[in-house]
Amino acid sequence: MRATVIHAPRDIRVEEVADPRIQEPTDVVVRVLRACVCGSDLWAYRGESAREPGQRIGHEFLGVVEEAGAGVQGFVPGDLVVAPFVWSDGTCAYCADGLTTSCDRGGFWGSAGSDGGQGEAVRVPYADGTLVGLPAAAASDDRLLTALLSLSDVLGTGHHAALGAGVTPGSTVAVVGDGAVGLCGVMAAKRLGAGRIIALGRHRTRTDIARGFGATDVVAERGEAAVAAVRELTRGEGAHGVIEAVGTEQSMRTAFGIVRDGGSIGYVGVPHGSGTGVDLGAMFDRNIALRGGVAPVRTYIPELLPDVLDGTIDPSPVFDLTVGLDGVPGGYKAMDERTALKVLVKP
Amino acid sequence: MRATVIHAPRDIRVEEVADPRIQEPTDVVVRVLRACVCGSDLWAYRGESAREPGQRIGHEFLGVVEEAGAGVQGFVPGDLVVAPFVWSDGTCAYCADGLTTSCDRGGFWGSAGSDGGQGEAVRVPYADGTLVGLPAAAASDDRLLTALLSLSDVLGTGHHAALGAGVTPGSTVAVVGDGAVGLCGVMAAKRLGAGRIIALGRHRTRTDIARGFGATDVVAERGEAAVAAVRELTRGEGAHGVIEAVGTEQSMRTAFGIVRDGGSIGYVGVPHGSGTGVDLGAMFDRNIALRGGVAPVRTYIPELLPDVLDGTIDPSPVFDLTVGLDGVPGGYKAMDERTALKVLVKP
Repeated sequence: MRATVIHAPRDIRVEEVADPRIQEPTDVVVRVLRACVCGSDLWAYRGESAREPGQRIGHEFLGVVEEAGAGVQGFVPGDLVVAPFVWSDGTCAYCADGLTTSCDRGGFWGSAGSDGGQGEAVRVPYADGTLVGLPAAAASDDRLLTALLSLSDVLGTGHHAALGAGVTPGSTVAVVGDGAVGLCGVMAAKRLGAGRIIALGRHRTRTDIARGFGATDVVAERGEAAVAAVRELTRGEGAHGVIEAVGTEQSMRTAFGIVRDGGSIGYVGVPHGSGTGVDLGAMFDRNIALRGGVAPVRTYIPELLPDVLDGTIDPSPVFDLTVGLDGVPGGYKAMDERTALKVLVKP
Repeated sequence: MRATVIHAPRDIRVEEVADPRIQEPTDVVVRVLRACVCGSDLWAYRGESAREPGQRIGHEFLGVVEEAGAGVQGFVPGDLVVAPFVWSDGTCAYCADGLTTSCDRGGFWGSAGSDGGQGEAVRVPYADGTLVGLPAAAASDDRLLTALLSLSDVLGTGHHAALGAGVTPGSTVAVVGDGAVGLCGVMAAKRLGAGRIIALGRHRTRTDIARGFGATDVVAERGEAAVAAVRELTRGEGAHGVIEAVGTEQSMRTAFGIVRDGGSIGYVGVPHGSGTGVDLGAMFDRNIALRGGVAPVRTYIPELLPDVLDGTIDPSPVFDLTVGLDGVPGGYKAMDERTALKVLVKP
């Protein structure tokens, strides 16, 4: 089959690789219908996260079960399924607690030795713990299928950030980061009842999506000017909760600058760079909580799925460029250059 | 009157100072019955926190209202009252939210220009917002009066840490720090229903108090060995919640080492030193929350007071040395040398 492989920074290729096959009785093989490129894939693309030459890449996909191991109980060939970006056994103490990302037997698609999502098919370990079934009818609804793909990462990650930010009905939330995760954070905050949602961003196409997802205010300034603008909007106090969906020192500093005393920063941007932007002294004096991390999206899918299916929320607008497998390298380039927000892949 | 003054690191004196008087109609003057020395006072004593020469010191006291300003509605001369370590107006948006430590008009006893708790009397700003009345009968109960003094800081701070650590009924909590706050953290965790409480400490007198307060396990090791010991006690996973009641880089590192993935660190040790011990990458990968800060103890007193009054909890054992005002400098020395856990002052 054909799959996306990263050989070196900025060297993304689509190549012929070995077909995935059942290796353990708990495996299934999924034929990929939709995959995509994640902002966090760009850290590997840019060389900021190390990869072994030849590693697969891509961690978001949905598709149809092609073959199921003898021990798989929940899925049969033909089932439409979505995969969270981490596989997990579904049975350990962490999985029982909903922290599937800490599963001892879990792992990330595209890690060394595993398949990546940006390919024709994927071997899925611990299928019963990992996958979530989707209604078969969705397969013929292009818009819905795209919306459901967001359950693989960005929607659940936005939801995780909103939980970390402590969104409550009527609260004021500010969102740092206008990528797909930040935009899904806006949507998740709205879904949880936030009364006011301030999106930070300067790209009109993105802030228009933010408004469509529920943002009540847009702040185009950056850095200190952004902090001043958010405080101006919030009686000088800042937002009760802040979603940090970038992962740089500067974005974390901005988050600290715009959070109200006693508030929470829900951070889901993968930390990278040398500085963290975390000011423990300010956290202490102002009682700011810092919560978040790698989102256990598997746990959130059952809660979010009905709202996507019935159209209560529609995250599909975060995908603004569609490519086939051959277009994946170009898709990385487009996202790196910010000419695309998020690239949808139809293998 | 006589009060404690800090002139320089390790230069604590008890001197004649101007009598406090009503300056604003919202003031009262409190004659101090009980005060004490806090572990955080030692940072000033050791020169790790800057103080102006001649600044008052001490931020924990209870006593009797001697005089009340014309605008004070809740207190009259003769009332027995306890003061939280921060004064607050009780009317601003932050006070309404219970975050009295962020009150715009609030301040710390012993800050430049204000009275400190370690003296014969204190001018209390915003008395209606700041003070909490105590039953008059408590004044004649020496043990109870000492227990009530803990409401001024250490008990409420321990409670804040336990909330930050996310203590829930049946959960496992580990406590880093065997000072009065750490011990009160043990008591608060027990009060909130923790099923297992692991106290880290090697001083038998302190760990005995910890056991009396509810600790089910004591770990005497330090650093990496302490981490290994706590993990050994928790199936290798760590504690659901960790109370960090020291404030050093090493203590925070220990807290991160012993917290379970998905757990919370409730930190109330005043951060000091150059490093924070906060590992954002580990926080991200393991979904560890960091919550806490300067405790809004004024907000907690109404909840904790009944349990102290009826003897459900008795924090008085944290005071193991009693001095008069003249003994205050010696009390600092004893706490600095760890021959005393917490010094009670009877002016």
